[in-house]
Parts: sequence; structure tokens; C-alpha cells
Amino acid sequence: MKTETIDLSRAYRLLNHGPAVLVSTTDGAVPNACTVAWCAPVSKSPALFVLAISDEHKTWANLAATRECVLNLPTVDALDALWVCGTETGHDGDKLGPAGIDVLPSRVVAPPRLACCVAWIEARLVETLVREDMSLVIVEAVAAETLPGVVDAHGHLDVARHRTLHHLGGSRFMLPGEVIDRA
Amino acid sequence: MKTETIDLSRAYRLLNHGPAVLVSTTDGAVPNACTVAWCAPVSKSPALFVLAISDEHKTWANLAATRECVLNLPTVDALDALWVCGTETGHDGDKLGPAGIDVLPSRVVAPPRLACCVAWIEARLVETLVREDMSLVIVEAVAAETLPGVVDAHGHLDVARHRTLHHLGGSRFMLPGEVIDRA
Repeated sequence: MKTETIDLSRAYRLLNHGPAVLVSTTDGAVPNACTVAWCAPVSKSPALFVLAISDEHKTWANLAATRECVLNLPTVDALDALWVCGTETGHDGDKLGPAGIDVLPSRVVAPPRLACCVAWIEARLVETLVREDMSLVIVEAVAAETLPGVVDAHGHLDVARHRTLHHLGGSRFMLPGEVIDRA
Repeated sequence: MKTETIDLSRAYRLLNHGPAVLVSTTDGAVPNACTVAWCAPVSKSPALFVLAISDEHKTWANLAATRECVLNLPTVDALDALWVCGTETGHDGDKLGPAGIDVLPSRVVAPPRLACCVAWIEARLVETLVREDMSLVIVEAVAAETLPGVVDAHGHLDVARHRTLHHLGGSRFMLPGEVIDRA
């Protein structure tokens, strides 16, 4: 698969506009992925991201054990994969294979990339914040790539062609519309 | 101004799709607001949100001192206000009045709402996380309202009519497009 490398200082621009992501992890034997709508960049350089992930999920257990994950960016073409990863548990074994969600090796980290996505941010865990009512992880990008042409020379996503998924709640999603520049 | 009350357990749906917000605060004398693209819900009930805000900003100082803020939801009609609040500092005195950004009293908290926005989440500070490379706040909603018709009976935003701003980086923003349901 042909890919383009994204400078880590520009990795935040892959998620800056608020799309849902698929977070892939591994327990060393079985790869897993979960859907996360509650994700945002929190620093440009280092490239840090915050994600709210239930500490009861397999993803949390994998992240705590291996300290590595991949933030995979799906588009509307990957809606079925996003739905499976957001509604099925990873505690009962492999949910990716049976759903036909293919994985690819990552460059730096052990968890695989999801082939159905258009951009991949490989990351390492740097911080957790757990309260009774929520659990957060902060991860730092260590490699970022996209399919060719996903971003322009400024690192801006071409959302007209690569329609990211923005979760409105329940089963409803918003896709990108008009792009404007505030001159 | 006629408004509709949003149940706090549904407040997350105002920001779930990744829009930029305007965070208003006060130091007790002068109201202030800053633009935050790095914001996400982190719990439905209690309604918690995480925001990345520089600890050098006036907004951070106000939040630390008063522990209150309002998350104001702008649409494309408020792009100029969003730009002013994202590019000018609050350390030099009132930046809202000179820019013609009107404020309205909040229901519960001391910081005002911004009149140019379509939804308002009044919130209190519950947690901070400061590292050398980033600073986060977690806030809890204590009241939420919208203009009439901004959300439907399920709490889903009507993004076709209320076009939220999704920051792609630099001066570029994405507006909402097609809405789909994953049946």
C-alpha cells in the first residue's frame, strides 16, 4: 500500500476537526479496535491526543499493558467497521477477523493499522487520568501516515474526498460539507 | 431571548461531533472568551468535557480563580467572533466589547453567555491536568440551553440549519454536510 509520511508536528491536523477514530491495540496475540468519538488533540509538538476510553474495555487493558495504540482515521466507506468496533466487545476474542476488518503492520508500534482507514497515527501512552466517572488516556504520536493525497501541502485534510465521520449521537453521523477560509 | 433547556444527560450531544467552542469566563470584573478547538465530551452523566487550554491564557487564570465557565457553541454566523476570540489575548483588558461580541447573563454561573452562539453549556471546573507540554481542564455541565429548534427530540443537533465550525487548522474550517443514520 502506497502511503505518505506526515510530519509529527502536523499530525494534529488529521483529527483537529473532530472526527471519530478507531483505536487499535493488541494484547500480544489478538488485535483489537474500538470506536472513540471522544478524542481531541491537546498539543501540536509533541503531538499529544486525549481519548476517553472506558477502563472496563479491552482497549484500556491492552493500552495499560503494552502502552501502544494506533489512531486510525475512518471515512464513510468504513462506517460498517466503525459500527462493529463501537458495538462489539473485544473481551470475547477476535472481533476484527469475523467482521472482515483487515489489519496491516504498523511502522513503529506493535498494534496493527486498520486497512479500511485513510490515515494512521501510531502512538504511545504517556498519561492516564482515572476518576470514578470517567477515564482518559493521553497518547503521543510516534509515526503518522496517510494514503496519498489525503492532506494538502499544509497538512489540511481533503475532507471533500475523504469524508470523515462525526458522531452526532446514537446511530447518527455528520459528514463534511463546505470548507471555508477565514482570510 | 427564547431558549430551550437541554437535559444534562444529553448535553454531550451538543459537542459530540467535534465543533470548535468559545469558552467564556470572568475575572469578576471583565468577561473574556477564548476559542477552543481541542474539546470533547468525556462522560455522559455526569456531563463532563475535556478542554485543552494554555495555562498562560487569561481563560486559564479565570477558570482557576472562579472555577466556572460557559461552553458557547458558535455557527458559521459567528465566525468573526470565533476568530477574534482565538487570535486576541484577554490579558490586555476587554476584547469582547470592542469587537462587538455581546454577552448575556447565564442561569447558574457567573461568566456570561455569548449572544452570537446557538447553545450554551454552563459548567464548573472539576479537574486540571498540567504537564510541561500541555494543560487540560475537565469541566462538568450544570445547565445547558439552546436556541429553539437547535436540537431534535433525541437531542441530535440540526446541523443542516445550525452550521457548526470544525477547525481543519490555520484559517480553514469545515462546515457540516450530509447527515446519515447507520440503521
